[in-house]
Amino acid sequence: MLATGDPGGSDPRAAMPPVPPLLLACRRRPVPHTPVWFMRQAGRSLPEYRAARGSGAILEAISDPALAAELTLQPVRRYGVDAAILFSDIVVPLHAIGFGVTVEPGRGPVVAQPFTSRADLARLRPFVPEEDAPYVAEAAALVVRELGPGVPLIGFAGAPFTVASYLVEGGPSRTFARVKALMHSDPALWHALVGRLADIAAASLGAQVHAGASVVQLFDSWAGVLSPSEYERFALAATRRVFEAVRALGVPGIVFGVGTGELLPLMAQAGAQVVGVDWRVPLDAARRRVGPDHAVQGNLDPAVCLAPWEVVADEARDVLRRAGSAPGHVFNLGHGVLPETDPGVLCALVELVHAEGRAGTTPR
Amino acid sequence: MLATGDPGGSDPRAAMPPVPPLLLACRRRPVPHTPVWFMRQAGRSLPEYRAARGSGAILEAISDPALAAELTLQPVRRYGVDAAILFSDIVVPLHAIGFGVTVEPGRGPVVAQPFTSRADLARLRPFVPEEDAPYVAEAAALVVRELGPGVPLIGFAGAPFTVASYLVEGGPSRTFARVKALMHSDPALWHALVGRLADIAAASLGAQVHAGASVVQLFDSWAGVLSPSEYERFALAATRRVFEAVRALGVPGIVFGVGTGELLPLMAQAGAQVVGVDWRVPLDAARRRVGPDHAVQGNLDPAVCLAPWEVVADEARDVLRRAGSAPGHVFNLGHGVLPETDPGVLCALVELVHAEGRAGTTPR
Repeated sequence: MLATGDPGGSDPRAAMPPVPPLLLACRRRPVPHTPVWFMRQAGRSLPEYRAARGSGAILEAISDPALAAELTLQPVRRYGVDAAILFSDIVVPLHAIGFGVTVEPGRGPVVAQPFTSRADLARLRPFVPEEDAPYVAEAAALVVRELGPGVPLIGFAGAPFTVASYLVEGGPSRTFARVKALMHSDPALWHALVGRLADIAAASLGAQVHAGASVVQLFDSWAGVLSPSEYERFALAATRRVFEAVRALGVPGIVFGVGTGELLPLMAQAGAQVVGVDWRVPLDAARRRVGPDHAVQGNLDPAVCLAPWEVVADEARDVLRRAGSAPGHVFNLGHGVLPETDPGVLCALVELVHAEGRAGTTPR
Repeated sequence: MLATGDPGGSDPRAAMPPVPPLLLACRRRPVPHTPVWFMRQAGRSLPEYRAARGSGAILEAISDPALAAELTLQPVRRYGVDAAILFSDIVVPLHAIGFGVTVEPGRGPVVAQPFTSRADLARLRPFVPEEDAPYVAEAAALVVRELGPGVPLIGFAGAPFTVASYLVEGGPSRTFARVKALMHSDPALWHALVGRLADIAAASLGAQVHAGASVVQLFDSWAGVLSPSEYERFALAATRRVFEAVRALGVPGIVFGVGTGELLPLMAQAGAQVVGVDWRVPLDAARRRVGPDHAVQGNLDPAVCLAPWEVVADEARDVLRRAGSAPGHVFNLGHGVLPETDPGVLCALVELVHAEGRAGTTPR
């Protein structure tokens, strides 16, 4: 029994390292403590990040495996979080296949020639990670070697709708008018576009998992601009296509977007084990919406982390209380860490979650 | 009976003009047709707007009563909507009392010296409409004289939270980090701030109603960045204070924000007769959340108006279907008209809503 390494065995810890809490929570299994990590934990809030990163372009930093690995590891060392997430960007594959995407500081992804017509499909050739962006897997491998088996690495990609929104709008948008006009005006072209982006995301996630990532998150950050009907008609199928590929990789998946309160029941159908929730939806309501077959991730408001510690602690406890006692809660913020966040607050937050989180915890 | 002008009388039409459908719908009374207007209907989508407005600063255009009245009237002539909404801006009162607010084209309200501490309360003196911004009431009076009793004028103001967000952030924000940090760090100062902004909004609405506006809308555009708990603790009371003042004016009130799916039950407690809904929440779900004692306004996605007409018509019919047959639906977009919208589409949309809307319609 021990030789099989079955974690359900009588004393598997004698034979193999324990399964990390994040992986247990994603599978809705009992955990020794509620796992916690922070979206954008590798970022400008850390002085060591600003020192190591310098002032170069972000896509250059990402393409330097040693630097990307170092930036990925910094928050694990500083905060004691339960996972690393690869320092990268959702537009890396598009940049790598030559679509003409850059990332402007303070603005975000910008596309020189936006996607406007069927002819642009030719610019979306398949993404071959080992040829187009080998540095991603190299960085992942460096991170995994450093972390060892105790702390998982999260790989990630942009969801088809969200990536498409950048390609069609040409950059960040407030209204998403062009992307919505395209999906409603030419659904066939739209589905061809997001189908290709699904394959690109799947290829990227596959490379990261092969390099050692043991969880993946699909960022559908802007899905919340869609009505439920639009999400169902124009985003869900392509998202599902990504998670079908992830299922074959054998790792759990997380799907996340902001402003998705109305979409949570649909997002739960996308094939991910975990549904990420922003701070707008109380986590007890979110759990009801995604149903008992899914874990949830979230959802402290990142802006609350700028308040005095007593407020942060109160709000974090409210998240833990609403997460309930059933297994399947990954603590996180409801969106990325804000650059002005005090790292000390995030350290204290990790301690609080580890000490007080109780969703699926085994008796201590 | 007829002499009293009671609209509930046997044939009130013989004695007085019929009550406009918008006012009936706000009070959840039967209507001859579903009323419709569009947020930002007076705007860049209209060629006659661009011609009349020229390239001057928006606050200058607002302070010219004849021009503001003309811009207010244009969409009523063009679209045949059931209401005019005064051409103005939510920061006009703050600008008028000298807080140092301007409106930058393509960006929005910008504050030279943001609100950061208790000392800044002194910069928020009471707003005296007839002295500080007499042009608002003058424009409203010109509009009402032109419209006559058949088409109501909607007055509006910014809700305390949304105006405070501009004052504290110094301009439009993606994260609302400063305003949230302030409310959580110093609740007493926060409540003092939004209390003053409530009084300013109430004064502004009072002046517009005295000049002839017969409905008011409070724009809490960014309330959706708050969690329900934050809205309840930091926004609701000040909003209610505005609507208590509106109640004394004897006109119905509408409260509106985007991304407010989780907040709708709380917004229904703010004292408005009508709760505006963005496009994210299907209107049947929205009506359940606000309850039977409130009308709803909305909620076609403004970006859908850029799609081919058949798509627009389908989506508009879906809104009408979800609005149901009970009285109390004001058709609108889920947010403002996008500048690139074809005015012909909005004309056709008004026709469709008038012909096919059935919430509370009397037999034809």
